[in-house]
Amino acid sequence: MWLTIIRKISHRGGTFQLRFMQYPDAKCKWTLISTLRGIDANFDEWLRSQFTMYHENDIDIYKNKTQIWLVFEKTFSAIKGLVTYRPIFEEYFYEVLRLLFEDNVMYLEFRSTLPEMYELNGSTYKSEDTVRFYDDVIEKFKRTHPKFVGARLIYAPDRDNNNQTFNNIASILLNVKVGHPKILAGFDLVGQEDLGAPLLSYLWEVKRIAKLGIDVYFHAGETNWYQSNSDYNVIDAILLGSKRIGHALGLIKHPVALEMIKERNIAIEVCPISNQMLLYVDDLRNHPASFLIANGFPIVISYDDPSLWNVTGLSYDFYITFMAIAGRTADLRLLKQLSINSILYSSLTGDEKKLALQSWETDWGIFIENIHSVIV
Amino acid sequence: MWLTIIRKISHRGGTFQLRFMQYPDAKCKWTLISTLRGIDANFDEWLRSQFTMYHENDIDIYKNKTQIWLVFEKTFSAIKGLVTYRPIFEEYFYEVLRLLFEDNVMYLEFRSTLPEMYELNGSTYKSEDTVRFYDDVIEKFKRTHPKFVGARLIYAPDRDNNNQTFNNIASILLNVKVGHPKILAGFDLVGQEDLGAPLLSYLWEVKRIAKLGIDVYFHAGETNWYQSNSDYNVIDAILLGSKRIGHALGLIKHPVALEMIKERNIAIEVCPISNQMLLYVDDLRNHPASFLIANGFPIVISYDDPSLWNVTGLSYDFYITFMAIAGRTADLRLLKQLSINSILYSSLTGDEKKLALQSWETDWGIFIENIHSVIV
Repeated sequence: MWLTIIRKISHRGGTFQLRFMQYPDAKCKWTLISTLRGIDANFDEWLRSQFTMYHENDIDIYKNKTQIWLVFEKTFSAIKGLVTYRPIFEEYFYEVLRLLFEDNVMYLEFRSTLPEMYELNGSTYKSEDTVRFYDDVIEKFKRTHPKFVGARLIYAPDRDNNNQTFNNIASILLNVKVGHPKILAGFDLVGQEDLGAPLLSYLWEVKRIAKLGIDVYFHAGETNWYQSNSDYNVIDAILLGSKRIGHALGLIKHPVALEMIKERNIAIEVCPISNQMLLYVDDLRNHPASFLIANGFPIVISYDDPSLWNVTGLSYDFYITFMAIAGRTADLRLLKQLSINSILYSSLTGDEKKLALQSWETDWGIFIENIHSVIV
Repeated sequence: MWLTIIRKISHRGGTFQLRFMQYPDAKCKWTLISTLRGIDANFDEWLRSQFTMYHENDIDIYKNKTQIWLVFEKTFSAIKGLVTYRPIFEEYFYEVLRLLFEDNVMYLEFRSTLPEMYELNGSTYKSEDTVRFYDDVIEKFKRTHPKFVGARLIYAPDRDNNNQTFNNIASILLNVKVGHPKILAGFDLVGQEDLGAPLLSYLWEVKRIAKLGIDVYFHAGETNWYQSNSDYNVIDAILLGSKRIGHALGLIKHPVALEMIKERNIAIEVCPISNQMLLYVDDLRNHPASFLIANGFPIVISYDDPSLWNVTGLSYDFYITFMAIAGRTADLRLLKQLSINSILYSSLTGDEKKLALQSWETDWGIFIENIHSVIV
């Protein structure tokens, strides 16, 4: 029987860790979840509320980015011990794929920090093992869902790494490339850009990774500050050969960068709900992606961290893009192009894209037939 | 001795009118301000608060545009009876010019609905008389402030006019053009675009006005709705030959319109504080003018309705433009260009512009010398 134990760290404002353990370790004072449930009838409800940033009145709660990023990271930390328990992780990731499949997402590229998994007896795994668990779940899911094209990993450790950690990152990437070549899409760095070091400071590390033949898919320009370091990250992401760029909110303020984006055919990953939740774009009708759509720049729609804003699947972000960001004359053609872009700007090979597009076209045809029969 | 009387219309949520009258008219129940002051020691404080939309906690008060436009119009209506009393009007407009002069604004183009002025005995004036009062104050101000270049009028009645009123508008414009040719800069229509009729519905009326040889300076695109009627107003404003365009918030979403704006050298009137106060752009770092600046489009900075947001002079909007909208590398050259643009894109003739620029250059030189001496 598994034990679930909670640690309360009062000086960190109620931050806590969850851990499945056969016997509680001696590092700190653990309490059984069952004990806490006995004390507080609403414990489960409270615990669930700690797994999301979404609250009915969040417009009154979240006032500035530093505050919201703290909540953001606190929420990740609350979930971590739950989903890094290996058997739960496998169920959890399977459920991710299932929910996406239900939402008609047939192919996924996901970023992961490759967190350390653990077992009930306290033994832990390496990052490379986490990749193996991902891979196993994907293969298992594909067996029961033959239409599912697959899922690939962008290894995205925290951007606040020192050189020592970068040696470790490079070694992980190399091991994954050799051990699980099919799953690896590329590399990225994550975290609040406005506080972290600029992309430029990782120039040599990124070049080293590029030499391993690994593509980069950078988060860059998740900022409101024009010509700040985080804003210039977009330009460095382009120069460093990023295949896609996540957010790039200030891109439209850089005419030369816009030209390069078009020339190099780099897609921007647009995450409308995330941008609103994390206070980058309050009114999504003012989202810079309107400009990108109007000018025919390639964009792909993404959900960033859906569970944190209580979102399941990708359709919500498609909906927001269609209703708030696109113009009133936008129609099925936009939705079609956005769907095609998801495949076109993926890390799949030419042949894989062709197959995925064929499968998508069949589904799109059925979708249109269904609409047609409803209308007629 | 003047009497100041207030009318309370409770069913309109506290809307009221102020009026200077020798004897109160019989149209409704008037109360002397002195009586109200006797009842409530804080009456003056309350009254002053009705002359502005600005409140310390306005972020919690104003939730949507329809609500805020009601407050906006209610505030105008509260001020109206005060400033349309002819002697007060003359003092009031003189004070406007004086405050701008103190803020180093040497030339002004202002929009006015040409409201009806009145005297203590209840007699009223025509719109043409209002123009005459403006003109007299400007000439008086210039006599005591020889450096002041002048002020010109854009006649801007409410956009919700029917054809009957348009006959009246055309006749006023013609009379002003003949009677006060120097003061008339052009024509515009004002009001909440998202609720009013589109510019296109005034096509023939505007063409009639253009035939009188009167330039148009349209408010257009003060909206967040991409490809709405109000958004398309920007395109119609261009096609109708607008010399400048006010707001044009969605312009950057229209590539062809952007090309035409550049080709025809039309300046956009950017009003950052107004856009934030009226809830069009919450975070001014996301203001579309960043794009316009980055791409070298001509813009002029304006304050729209400063007293409504408790602002005196133009420097606040320059400050916001410099700090929030422009990039971090923006410097004195931007401020210089914005100042020059104010003259360059005015309705002044070529010779007048030359003179105004010469005078401005002298002042700019002194400004730079002063900065230099402080730094060195």
